[in-house]
Amino acid sequence: MKKMIFLVAAALIMASCTCNKDESVATPSNAEATMATIMNRKSVRSYTGEAVSDSTITLLLRAAMAAPSGRNIQPWHFVVLRDTSRYTAIFGEDNFNMPMFKASSAVVIFCADTTVTAPPRDNPQGEAVTRPNGLWRDDLGACTENFLLAVESMGLGAVWTALYPYPERFAPVKESLVLPDNVMPYCAVPIGVPTGDDQPKDKWKPERIHYNQW
Amino acid sequence: MKKMIFLVAAALIMASCTCNKDESVATPSNAEATMATIMNRKSVRSYTGEAVSDSTITLLLRAAMAAPSGRNIQPWHFVVLRDTSRYTAIFGEDNFNMPMFKASSAVVIFCADTTVTAPPRDNPQGEAVTRPNGLWRDDLGACTENFLLAVESMGLGAVWTALYPYPERFAPVKESLVLPDNVMPYCAVPIGVPTGDDQPKDKWKPERIHYNQW
Repeated sequence: MKKMIFLVAAALIMASCTCNKDESVATPSNAEATMATIMNRKSVRSYTGEAVSDSTITLLLRAAMAAPSGRNIQPWHFVVLRDTSRYTAIFGEDNFNMPMFKASSAVVIFCADTTVTAPPRDNPQGEAVTRPNGLWRDDLGACTENFLLAVESMGLGAVWTALYPYPERFAPVKESLVLPDNVMPYCAVPIGVPTGDDQPKDKWKPERIHYNQW
Repeated sequence: MKKMIFLVAAALIMASCTCNKDESVATPSNAEATMATIMNRKSVRSYTGEAVSDSTITLLLRAAMAAPSGRNIQPWHFVVLRDTSRYTAIFGEDNFNMPMFKASSAVVIFCADTTVTAPPRDNPQGEAVTRPNGLWRDDLGACTENFLLAVESMGLGAVWTALYPYPERFAPVKESLVLPDNVMPYCAVPIGVPTGDDQPKDKWKPERIHYNQW
């Protein structure tokens, strides 16, 4: 399945991408590999129990922090959990109904600073003030997706588990991790070595593309 | 710069990724290429004016539609604009203060159906009802990032221009495109062949990583 999606992606790219012929980095292979990663990414809830190293998690977070960010505010913070004995306290008895949650090697809690502290826009030399950041949720969405794609590219598995906007999920996480008032837990992402049971979905819906008007 | 980031990404992966040795798809190269794409992605606002083909845009939207989606609702729709004479009507006189906006080859308006029409959760056999979708904004964030990474991987350039949550931006776009009541324009993404003036930012902030507690 993975190989098939890779080959389909490669064929589609070869058929349509005529750009960047003189690029020193081999772009067709970058495009093929990136498309294969994007098309192969799936929600992985079943893990073998093998460990993922701290250095790999750091590398995944390097990808996360490269996400676009409105006005370059970069509101993200990450809490990396490896102690499964704390999961029940943090995520509740049912671990969000994910039986395999505890078989993951780590859970990363993606958090956002929901405020910006900077001089007022109309007075860049003035004293810093704290105001709401209207784009933190969008930044965190892109940041989480970067992380998930890096996970997939390394042959690992993860699943985006929403915390925000559900108070019954984000409130206990915020409380148990003693997060500052201005820090919102956005999602919880368990990571592990996939058993192979989870497969990507075909979501291609050409009818969702509208040309020039609705 | 691009080559340097690629080499840094490759070196980091070689140093830390020991997984998937027996994978039939060449995973180390997938990981290197995907990480290079993620680290090289940048907001590109300067375009040469060269055209990007319809088939390339379709391929980019294939990547967008492969994004994760809460409960697999896939709330995204895309309006592809190529007629620059309409941009002033849609985006206002200043084109969101982006002087190069009109030099792009196309602008894709990422939209979301903010509702879900399905049987009630507590009565899966019952009559379909329409209710708000609490996760459309997160899904659209991931969807936009997939698109931007596919753009980067093909040597093209694009920039995420927020419409939501700003009424002064999304309201005129919604009105000029005559979008249904339940469809929200989320962001506008111009695409073109980059002049090379725009470069990626280094956003690595290890102090944003917290282990086991804040």
